[in-house]
Amino acid sequence: MSNQSETLYLSTNLAERFAAVRQFTETLCETLRPEDCCIQSMPNSSPVRWHLAHTTWFFETFLLKTDSNYRSYDEHYEVLFNSYYNSVGEQFPRALRGMLTRPTVAEVYDYRHEVDRLVTKWFGEGQIDADQQLAKVVELGLHHEQQHQELILTDVKHMFSLNPLRPRFRAGLRPSASDSPAKCEWIHFEEGLYTIGHVGEGFAYDNEGPQHRVFLEPYALASRPVTSGEFLEFISEGGYSRPEFWLSEGWQQVQVNGWHHPLYWYEQDGRWQEFTLSGSRPVDLAAPVTHVSFFEADAFSRWAGVRLPTEAEWEVAAQDVGITGNFADTLLCSGHAIHPSSRSVDDGRLAQMFGDIWEWTASQYTAYPGYQPAPGALGEYNGKFMCNQFVLRGGSCATSSNHIRRTYRNFFAPEARWQFSGFRLAK
Amino acid sequence: MSNQSETLYLSTNLAERFAAVRQFTETLCETLRPEDCCIQSMPNSSPVRWHLAHTTWFFETFLLKTDSNYRSYDEHYEVLFNSYYNSVGEQFPRALRGMLTRPTVAEVYDYRHEVDRLVTKWFGEGQIDADQQLAKVVELGLHHEQQHQELILTDVKHMFSLNPLRPRFRAGLRPSASDSPAKCEWIHFEEGLYTIGHVGEGFAYDNEGPQHRVFLEPYALASRPVTSGEFLEFISEGGYSRPEFWLSEGWQQVQVNGWHHPLYWYEQDGRWQEFTLSGSRPVDLAAPVTHVSFFEADAFSRWAGVRLPTEAEWEVAAQDVGITGNFADTLLCSGHAIHPSSRSVDDGRLAQMFGDIWEWTASQYTAYPGYQPAPGALGEYNGKFMCNQFVLRGGSCATSSNHIRRTYRNFFAPEARWQFSGFRLAK
Amino acid sequence: MSNQSETLYLSTNLAERFAAVRQFTETLCETLRPEDCCIQSMPNSSPVRWHLAHTTWFFETFLLKTDSNYRSYDEHYEVLFNSYYNSVGEQFPRALRGMLTRPTVAEVYDYRHEVDRLVTKWFGEGQIDADQQLAKVVELGLHHEQQHQELILTDVKHMFSLNPLRPRFRAGLRPSASDSPAKCEWIHFEEGLYTIGHVGEGFAYDNEGPQHRVFLEPYALASRPVTSGEFLEFISEGGYSRPEFWLSEGWQQVQVNGWHHPLYWYEQDGRWQEFTLSGSRPVDLAAPVTHVSFFEADAFSRWAGVRLPTEAEWEVAAQDVGITGNFADTLLCSGHAIHPSSRSVDDGRLAQMFGDIWEWTASQYTAYPGYQPAPGALGEYNGKFMCNQFVLRGGSCATSSNHIRRTYRNFFAPEARWQFSGFRLAK
Amino acid sequence: MSNQSETLYLSTNLAERFAAVRQFTETLCETLRPEDCCIQSMPNSSPVRWHLAHTTWFFETFLLKTDSNYRSYDEHYEVLFNSYYNSVGEQFPRALRGMLTRPTVAEVYDYRHEVDRLVTKWFGEGQIDADQQLAKVVELGLHHEQQHQELILTDVKHMFSLNPLRPRFRAGLRPSASDSPAKCEWIHFEEGLYTIGHVGEGFAYDNEGPQHRVFLEPYALASRPVTSGEFLEFISEGGYSRPEFWLSEGWQQVQVNGWHHPLYWYEQDGRWQEFTLSGSRPVDLAAPVTHVSFFEADAFSRWAGVRLPTEAEWEVAAQDVGITGNFADTLLCSGHAIHPSSRSVDDGRLAQMFGDIWEWTASQYTAYPGYQPAPGALGEYNGKFMCNQFVLRGGSCATSSNHIRRTYRNFFAPEARWQFSGFRLAK
Repeated sequence: MSNQSETLYLSTNLAERFAAVRQFTETLCETLRPEDCCIQSMPNSSPVRWHLAHTTWFFETFLLKTDSNYRSYDEHYEVLFNSYYNSVGEQFPRALRGMLTRPTVAEVYDYRHEVDRLVTKWFGEGQIDADQQLAKVVELGLHHEQQHQELILTDVKHMFSLNPLRPRFRAGLRPSASDSPAKCEWIHFEEGLYTIGHVGEGFAYDNEGPQHRVFLEPYALASRPVTSGEFLEFISEGGYSRPEFWLSEGWQQVQVNGWHHPLYWYEQDGRWQEFTLSGSRPVDLAAPVTHVSFFEADAFSRWAGVRLPTEAEWEVAAQDVGITGNFADTLLCSGHAIHPSSRSVDDGRLAQMFGDIWEWTASQYTAYPGYQPAPGALGEYNGKFMCNQFVLRGGSCATSSNHIRRTYRNFFAPEARWQFSGFRLAK
Repeated sequence: MSNQSETLYLSTNLAERFAAVRQFTETLCETLRPEDCCIQSMPNSSPVRWHLAHTTWFFETFLLKTDSNYRSYDEHYEVLFNSYYNSVGEQFPRALRGMLTRPTVAEVYDYRHEVDRLVTKWFGEGQIDADQQLAKVVELGLHHEQQHQELILTDVKHMFSLNPLRPRFRAGLRPSASDSPAKCEWIHFEEGLYTIGHVGEGFAYDNEGPQHRVFLEPYALASRPVTSGEFLEFISEGGYSRPEFWLSEGWQQVQVNGWHHPLYWYEQDGRWQEFTLSGSRPVDLAAPVTHVSFFEADAFSRWAGVRLPTEAEWEVAAQDVGITGNFADTLLCSGHAIHPSSRSVDDGRLAQMFGDIWEWTASQYTAYPGYQPAPGALGEYNGKFMCNQFVLRGGSCATSSNHIRRTYRNFFAPEARWQFSGFRLAK
Repeated sequence: MSNQSETLYLSTNLAERFAAVRQFTETLCETLRPEDCCIQSMPNSSPVRWHLAHTTWFFETFLLKTDSNYRSYDEHYEVLFNSYYNSVGEQFPRALRGMLTRPTVAEVYDYRHEVDRLVTKWFGEGQIDADQQLAKVVELGLHHEQQHQELILTDVKHMFSLNPLRPRFRAGLRPSASDSPAKCEWIHFEEGLYTIGHVGEGFAYDNEGPQHRVFLEPYALASRPVTSGEFLEFISEGGYSRPEFWLSEGWQQVQVNGWHHPLYWYEQDGRWQEFTLSGSRPVDLAAPVTHVSFFEADAFSRWAGVRLPTEAEWEVAAQDVGITGNFADTLLCSGHAIHPSSRSVDDGRLAQMFGDIWEWTASQYTAYPGYQPAPGALGEYNGKFMCNQFVLRGGSCATSSNHIRRTYRNFFAPEARWQFSGFRLAK
Repeated sequence: MSNQSETLYLSTNLAERFAAVRQFTETLCETLRPEDCCIQSMPNSSPVRWHLAHTTWFFETFLLKTDSNYRSYDEHYEVLFNSYYNSVGEQFPRALRGMLTRPTVAEVYDYRHEVDRLVTKWFGEGQIDADQQLAKVVELGLHHEQQHQELILTDVKHMFSLNPLRPRFRAGLRPSASDSPAKCEWIHFEEGLYTIGHVGEGFAYDNEGPQHRVFLEPYALASRPVTSGEFLEFISEGGYSRPEFWLSEGWQQVQVNGWHHPLYWYEQDGRWQEFTLSGSRPVDLAAPVTHVSFFEADAFSRWAGVRLPTEAEWEVAAQDVGITGNFADTLLCSGHAIHPSSRSVDDGRLAQMFGDIWEWTASQYTAYPGYQPAPGALGEYNGKFMCNQFVLRGGSCATSSNHIRRTYRNFFAPEARWQFSGFRLAK
C-alpha cells in the first residue's frame, strides 16, 4: 500500500475517499489467488469474490440506477449480488454463494472497474456534489464497503483455518511487539443521567441515533481488555466444564460444538498455538484474548465475579478517549500482522478502547428510543437485525481506522466467534 | 373447584396456601386421562405427568432434603424430574421426557401425596415457620408450581391441537361473553426518571430486582390490546407476505414454518376458526389476539406505523392499574372457558393490563443493573436464561390471579407461540 | 394364557383362529398400563395403542367395508390408523403417532371389540366361508396381526429400555435354561438348480412367490447361529474399531451412532449386562447373539473370514428342517421369558433354524422373477419396500409359531437393531 | 484433442496408455477456469481440482511408494487426497473437499506433472514391465482415472446448473443429430442356465467376477432405452403424483425433494428445456431420457406395466452386442456435445446398449458367489459399497469408449440423478 493511497484515504473529499476505499479493498485482496476468492467456508461467511461484487452492486443499485437511463451491467448480477434487500428484489440464496464459479474473479474486477469508472465520471461532472441524497448514498456505500473489508479478513481467516496446509493471508508481515500486559485497574464512573447516541453532521448509521438520555448507576470499567493469559486461567480452572458460569444457551453451545478454548487455538506438544492471518504461532498471552463468543466472555466474567459492561456504560466511558489503536489500515501500512497485541501503558486510564478487538457488551441489540429506520431499501440496513444479537464496541485490528466511532454499534449473534471479538470487564 | 378451596387459596397463611396451590394443580388435571399425561408434543413442552412430578421434586429437593435424615422417595426421581438445575446433578434429557411411561400417573400422584404429607407435617411441627430460609423455599416452590400450572394448560392445548379428534380439556365451560371491543385510545406518559423493579417484603423472583431508575422519553400506550379483528386486517393486507414489516429472523420463521395466521387458527368454509381448550369455535374478533409470536407482534406494530412498548414503559404505566382481569382460577371457578375475551369499558384508562393475554414487549430479557442471582441451585432459576428471549408482562387467562405482579417479568423466545401471548401498541 | 385359548389358537378353523389371534394380541398387552400404550420411542416404532387400533382398522377397512351398508365406526379412525396404504386414502403422519392421547386405550379396546363382534357375526352367518375373497382377507389380516404382535414386543422393549427405571414387560417369566452352546459345524450342500419360493394351498405373502429355480454353487451353513460369547470375541479383538471388516455405510453407522456392542448391552462393574423384556441380566454367552444390525452381522462374518448365507441358500437348507423352536406363544404359555436361548444338541444337523432369532441373510430384498403384487390396496403390503432392505429368515422368540414358514421373507433396513435379529455363518 | 493423442489412447502399450489417459484428463479440463475447479456443489460430488489430485495420489500411493526410497511429494497430500482408503490412513473429510483453496489448481498440475514424470521414468527404465504387480496397479490406476474423468463431467454439470448464468462446459460443440426414435420392440430370450461375470486376461474390477452360472426364466428386453418423449407421457399422466407406481422410499424422495421431472429439466414459456454441458436447449424428445434416479426408472416401468431388467438379464443380452456407441472420447474428438442422442436403426436388434446413458437395472449391488475383494488397500475399491446401491450397465456419453465392458458393474444409490442415467424396459 503506497503512501499516496494512504494520504488519499484520510482525505475528507468524498471523491478522493471513494477512490481510496475502493482501492483499499483491492489492496487487501492482492495476495489472494482466484481459488481463494470462490469459497464459502460456513453459512455466515461469504466468498471474497462475493464481497468484491456485492460492494460494487451497492453503488450500482443505489447510485447509478437512480439515473433512469442507466443500463444494468448484467441483470443476473442484480440477483446474484443482492445480500438481503428484499425491497430491491429477489436474492440468490445466501448459503449457495459458494456454489458459483462464474463470474470469475477477473470478471468481477471488470465489474468493479466499470462501476468505479462511472461513479468517478459522476463525480467529475459534479452530479454527486450537487445532490445531497447521492452524496449520502456514496458515504453509506463507503462505510458499507469498509464493513465488507473487515469481513474479507475474517472470512478468509476462517477459510484458511480449515486447510491443513495453513495458508497465510499475506507473507512478510511481522507481529506487533508483545509487551507484558498493563496492570488491570478499575476506572470508576458516577451515577447520573448521561447522553449517548449519535448527533450532528458526520456520518453515522441510523442505528446510532437518535441521541438520548440514559440513567446509569455507579459503575467501573477495567482499564484494558482481558488477555489471553487471563483467559488461560479460566480454562485451567475448568471454565469450559462448569455450567454454573454459563448462560443456558451458552452451555448448550459448549456441549454441541465441543468448545474448550477460543476459536483458532490448538494444543501442540503441550503448548497453546493459535492460527493467525500470518500463520500459526504460540498464543500471545499478553495480548487481548480474541475469537471468543459472547457466551465465553459472559462466562469468564461470572467466573471472575464481575460482569460485562452495557453499551451505554461503554459509550459514556469512551467519550473522553481518543480514537487510536491498532487498525487494519495502520497495521498493513506499517508492515504489521493483522492481529491484536498488548500495550503496556500503565497510566491509570482506559487503554485499547479502540482497535485490536471488538468488545462484547452485555447489551442485546435493540432500537434506541425514537429510532426510525431510513426510508426505502436502505432502511433494511440495520433495523431488521434487532433480535438475538449482542452489541460490540470499539472496532478491531481488522477495522479501518476511519470507519469507527464512539457511537458505533456492531452486532453479532452471541455464539459468533470468527470476528476479532474480545471483551473488557465491568462491575 | 369448591368454594372452600378458593377461600384457602387466597389465604396469606403459608401452610394454607401450600395446600391450596398443590390442590389446584390436581384440580386442573382432574379431567385428564392417564394417556393425556404422558405425551410431549414438542421439545419445548413437557408431559403433564412430568409437571406433576417436577413440582413435587422441587419441594423434595430443596425443602425435605435439607433434613439430612430424609431418605429420598426414589433415587431415580432425582434425575428424572430435575429440569435444568445443573448444581443438583444430572438431568434426564428434556427432549426424552415424553419417552417415559413409568412411573405411571397414579405412581406420580402417590409421590405428590407423600411429599405433601411430609411438608404438611413439617408445617404442623412448626419447622417451616421457624426457619425463614425454609419458608422462602416453600414460597418459591408455590410460585414455581403456579408457573407449571400455566404450562400444563398451554402444553395440553398444544398436544390436543395435533389430534384430529380435537379433544376438549374440560367440558361444560362457557365462553366469556364477547362485547364489541372498546375503542382504542392512546394514554400518554411524560418523560422522566422513573423507578421500576421489585422492592419490599412480598415475594418476587430475583430477576424482578433490584429496584432501579430508568429515564423514559415521552410515550403513549394503547388503552387495550390488539384484537383478533385488527389482526385480521393485518392478514388481509398481506402482512404475512411483506418482508418490510418483519425482523430478518422473523421473516425466516415465516418462511420456514409457513406462518399465515396465529397458532390454532384455521380456515373452514371461508371462515376463521380457532382451536381452544374448550374446543373449536369461530375466532372472536373482539377479543385480544393470542398465540402470536414476538415476531408477529412486532411486524403488526410496524404495519400499524407504531411499535411495541419497552418493559419499563409497560411497568411505569401499570403502577396505577389494579391487578384484575381474567385469570385461570377465576375463570374456572366461575365456569368460564380458559380463553381471552373482550371488555368494552371505554373509560379512557388502560384496560386489560392484567390477565387474558401476556403482552410482548420490545425488551430483550436481560439483568437489571445490580442483579445478583440467588446463591446455590436456586440461582439457576432465572439468570441463566438472559439471552435471546423477550419479556412479556401482565399474565394471561392461564395464569393464577395471585401469581402475577406489576414487576413480574415473563420471558420466551421470540418465535414462541404456544403461550397465551398477545400485545399492546405503543408510540 | 389359558390352555383353552392355546387349543383354539392351533385350530385350522378360520373363525376359531380369528378369535384366537385377536385374543392373543390382548393377552400380550394385558400387563401394560395405559401410559405404556401411548408412546412412540423412535420413528420406526409405534405406540401399542396404535398397533391395537391399526390391526382392527385392517379388518374394518378390508372386510367390513366391503358391505356397502356398513357405517364407519369413526371416520377419524380411517386416517388415524391407516399405516401406509396410499390407495385407501390419507394417513396420519407416522412420526406423529406418539402425539395422540385420544382415543384412549379403553376406547381402542371398544373399537376392537365392536369390530370383533361384527366379524364374528359375519362368521356366524356364513358370509365369510361362502366368499373365498373375504376368507382370504381374514387370513391376511390374521398374519398381519401376528406381525404387529411381534412389533408390540420389540417396540415395548425399545421404549422400556430408555427408562432408567428399567420396567419389565411381564413379571414372573423365567429365563430358558442356558446350556453351553452346541459345537458349531459346517453343513455342506451341493451345487445345483434348486427350487425356492412358495407354491400351493396354504397362506403365504405375495412376496414369497412365485416359486422359481435358482442355481447355487456349493456352499456350507453353520449348524447353529453365532452366540453372544463368539460375538464378544469380535468385540475384544477390536471389531467395532477396524474399518476393514465393515461395509462403507456400516462403518458410518458405527461412527455416527457410536456402536460398540449389540443394542441393549451395557457394561456394569466390568461385566456385560443386557436389558431384556424380563429385566436386566448378565449376557447369556451361550445364547444366539441378538439385536445386531445387518452391518454388524456382515462385519462379524468378514472378521471370521467367512460370509452370510444368501436367502436362497438358507431356504434350500431349511427345506428338510422341522419348524420347531422358541416362539412367542410357546414361551409365554410355558412361562418362559421372551428371549433367545441356547440348545446344546450336537447331532450334526442344522439347529435353531426357526425361532429364537431372525437370521440376517446376504440378500437384499427384491422381487422374485415373475412377482406380481396383489391387486388393489393390499398390493401395497410388500412390494413397495423392495429397496435398501435386507432379508431375514426363520422367525424369532417374538414370532408366533404358526406364523412362520420356510419361504417366509422378513425384511428390515440394514441398520435396524430393535428386532430380535441375529445371524448364522456360511461359506 | 489431436488425432495423435487419440491414436495413442487406443494403444495397448501400457506406457502409451498411461500417457494418453493422463492427458485426456487435462484435455477435459482445459476450458475450466481455476474458479471452476474448487467448488463442491453437493456432498456426493467433488471439486475438479480434487479429482485432478486424487487420481495422481493414486499413482503416487500405490505405485511410487512401493519404492522405499521414494519421498512423498507433500505429506499433507496423503491425507488431503485420499478418498476412502482406510487402510492407507486418515482422510480429509469428504464434505469439506470444497473448503480448500490450496493447493491451487496450478500447484495441483505441478503435482500431476511430477508424478507423471516419475512414472514415465519408471516405464523408461523397464521397472513396470518387469513387475506384473506394478503393471496391474498402473492398469487399475488408469481405469480409476477414467472413472474420475466421468465424474469431472457430471460434477461440473451439476455445479454449473446451480449458476443462473448457465455457464457452458465447452463452447463450439454441436449437438448430435436427433432422428426420430427407432420403434421399440421386444427382443426375447429363452430360459436357461447362463454364465455371466468376467473371466480371462483383460482388465476387470474385482466385482465383475468370479464368472458364475445363473438360471434365468424367459424374458424380453426393449430394443432401445426409454426416450424423453415417452417419459413426458409418464409426467403428463401424473406419474410423479401417483404413489401406486413408486417404491415407498422413492415416493418419499419425490415428496421431500419435490421431484416433478428429470434433473436439469425446467419449463420455460410452456416448453420443456434442459440444461446440458453445452448450455440450455429444448428437451430432445427422441433421445434416451437421462438424469433420472432408479426410483423414477422403476416407477416408469410400473406405469408402463412392465419392469426393469436384472443385471444378469442385461449381461446375457449384451453378450452378442458390439461395444459401440456415443462415448465421451469419441464425442469430443468429433466435436459433438456430451449428451445422449437417438439412433433410428430399426433392425430388430438391441440398440444403444453401450454409451449414451447408463442403464439402471433392477439388481441391488451385491457380491457375486465366491467374490473375494483384492488384498490390501485396493480391496476397498468396490466391495465395501455393496449395500443400498443399484447396478447400472453399459456406460454413458460421459464414459470413455475403452473403459466399458460387457461385465462392467457401475453402482449408485437409487436416488442419485446426477450421472447420465437412463433405463431400458424388460418383461
